[in-house]
Amino acid sequence: MESDSTAPALSDALAELIENYHELNASTIDELHNEPSPLEFMHYVALNRPFVVRGATSRWTATRKWNAAYLREIMRGQMVNVAITPLGNADSPVQITSGDREDTLFVKPLEVQEAFEDVLEYISKQELEQRDGEIKYAQTQNDNLRGEYTPLASDVQDIPWVRIALEKDPEAINFWLGNSRSVTALHKDNFENIYCQVIGQKHFVLMPPIEMPCVREKELPGATYAQNPESGKLEIKLDEESNTVPFPTWDPDVPERSTTAFSKLSRPLRVTLNAGDMLYLPAMWYHKVSQSCSDEGLCCAVNYWYDMEFAGSFHSLCAFERSAALQIS
Amino acid sequence: MESDSTAPALSDALAELIENYHELNASTIDELHNEPSPLEFMHYVALNRPFVVRGATSRWTATRKWNAAYLREIMRGQMVNVAITPLGNADSPVQITSGDREDTLFVKPLEVQEAFEDVLEYISKQELEQRDGEIKYAQTQNDNLRGEYTPLASDVQDIPWVRIALEKDPEAINFWLGNSRSVTALHKDNFENIYCQVIGQKHFVLMPPIEMPCVREKELPGATYAQNPESGKLEIKLDEESNTVPFPTWDPDVPERSTTAFSKLSRPLRVTLNAGDMLYLPAMWYHKVSQSCSDEGLCCAVNYWYDMEFAGSFHSLCAFERSAALQIS
Ligand SMILES: O=C(O)CCC(=O)C(=O)O
Ligand SMILES: O=C(O)CCC(=O)C(=O)O
Repeated sequence: MESDSTAPALSDALAELIENYHELNASTIDELHNEPSPLEFMHYVALNRPFVVRGATSRWTATRKWNAAYLREIMRGQMVNVAITPLGNADSPVQITSGDREDTLFVKPLEVQEAFEDVLEYISKQELEQRDGEIKYAQTQNDNLRGEYTPLASDVQDIPWVRIALEKDPEAINFWLGNSRSVTALHKDNFENIYCQVIGQKHFVLMPPIEMPCVREKELPGATYAQNPESGKLEIKLDEESNTVPFPTWDPDVPERSTTAFSKLSRPLRVTLNAGDMLYLPAMWYHKVSQSCSDEGLCCAVNYWYDMEFAGSFHSLCAFERSAALQIS
Repeated sequence: MESDSTAPALSDALAELIENYHELNASTIDELHNEPSPLEFMHYVALNRPFVVRGATSRWTATRKWNAAYLREIMRGQMVNVAITPLGNADSPVQITSGDREDTLFVKPLEVQEAFEDVLEYISKQELEQRDGEIKYAQTQNDNLRGEYTPLASDVQDIPWVRIALEKDPEAINFWLGNSRSVTALHKDNFENIYCQVIGQKHFVLMPPIEMPCVREKELPGATYAQNPESGKLEIKLDEESNTVPFPTWDPDVPERSTTAFSKLSRPLRVTLNAGDMLYLPAMWYHKVSQSCSDEGLCCAVNYWYDMEFAGSFHSLCAFERSAALQIS
């Protein structure tokens, strides 16, 4: 019943979907020189297509004032959560070899509380003095700008055209501070994301949700970095609950590894944000993010997550495509 | 390769898509009491969800003035195209028996040019005097309000919130005049449709594009009604080019016939438009339309077709769903 010689096979239909999408959509990211109106923004949301606004936040206090001295001063005495990893790989697939078996795990960072000024100094010195050692990334993604980083919260602004268009306030505003050693692995979020670069640069690789068949999603056992009590070294510990996390294992920057039959059809979009630039990263887009630092050895950003719309047909159709793709993987 | 015991089969995935959609979307059509702003309209377009605005056009000249006498007067002397069918079934699937074979054809109406006043009188008298005979429906769908019906064109208005939101003018503005004998069979169009009822009532049955697996689409041989030169009766003639038309054969009003495994998952939405009401019928929605007449035996409407957006992922994902559904039919 599932195969009819006159109809293309399911894998042909998936390939056609990806090719069709690329024929109908630009292979570059729109660059705006002014912030859009709510209606213009809504066009992008309706299309689920990204854009960059160069210089959008150049007048924000954050963009004008944040630097090592200012952050240290305003955040003096605050404890913050920091993600620690051996390779700058918070929340990412890691291949491990146990005996003669290769396994890929989804590894979360060691999370510790440290004084903000120590974190800042560590991140900056590591970058400027090219020090080895553990990588630290302040990246809690739990609305931390209105939590741990409250003293900095008034330095960023409301984004009226998003609030008006989406008819909602952000679910989370996140503060990110790291250096060029940290790379965020390819993943997607169920949020509309407005990403504002404040210090240094972020380099995004973006792939539309319909490219799900390209990313070789696997169910990865969950694990976490933990400090070995004797050596003090970070090692991977499998989580106690034997949970798994569905996660992409294809890396658009190493396109010949961990491929599917569809990976070659992917057309990743690339964009670099400079301080003051804003990116609209639409819901469910895959993104891989790396960073370059200011001359103080810092890379800092703030992003706004708005709940995505599950009504309409977009989310349901993406879930259907995923189901279909998982059938032939 | 195409079947993996841990993954649900393709038909399960299609069923889940339809159920998922219904869980996330209302089972009624939104009713607005005022015309939306461009941004509010854009929300509906982004969701590809219909709404009705009661009384939206109550101040249009068309809504206030159109009746038998006015139309006859303004259109005096104009020849118009009229669709003629035996059953009120312009552009619809028709079952025919040839020998011991049953076939379903896609049958187009006989089209003739007649004086508008004769068409008007025929339609009205047939309704009021319950006359038998051929059914006439002026329904050219070729921007006829700005063609054959130009004398009436200034009686309808520009719809600013659509023009501003979609950033385009209508591709076609169509005039429809018929009586309760005509029914438009379930079909879909690649247009955003703003449907304005002017005289009498229209009864819409609507189904979202993701319900494609429910409608039993078939490739139907094309045919046309033609007058038998001897008897004068309408008979079906297969088109000379042996073309076929992909067309739904399931009728939401006769849900037990021509079903697929998915038809029972369909949740048709129903709405009646009265004179002055406006319906936003989103692109690619299936619609079946029947009519009730004013006390002059007339049903008249004007609709606006705007080119739909093929960019983004909606159209590509619908095409993928269709491919998948055709594989298991
Ligand atoms: O900035 C990063 O490292 C990752 C950003 C990200 O994943 C997000 O904004 O969702
Ligand atoms: O009014 C009718 O009979 C059909 C309307 C229709 O199919 C349309 O507006 O696309």
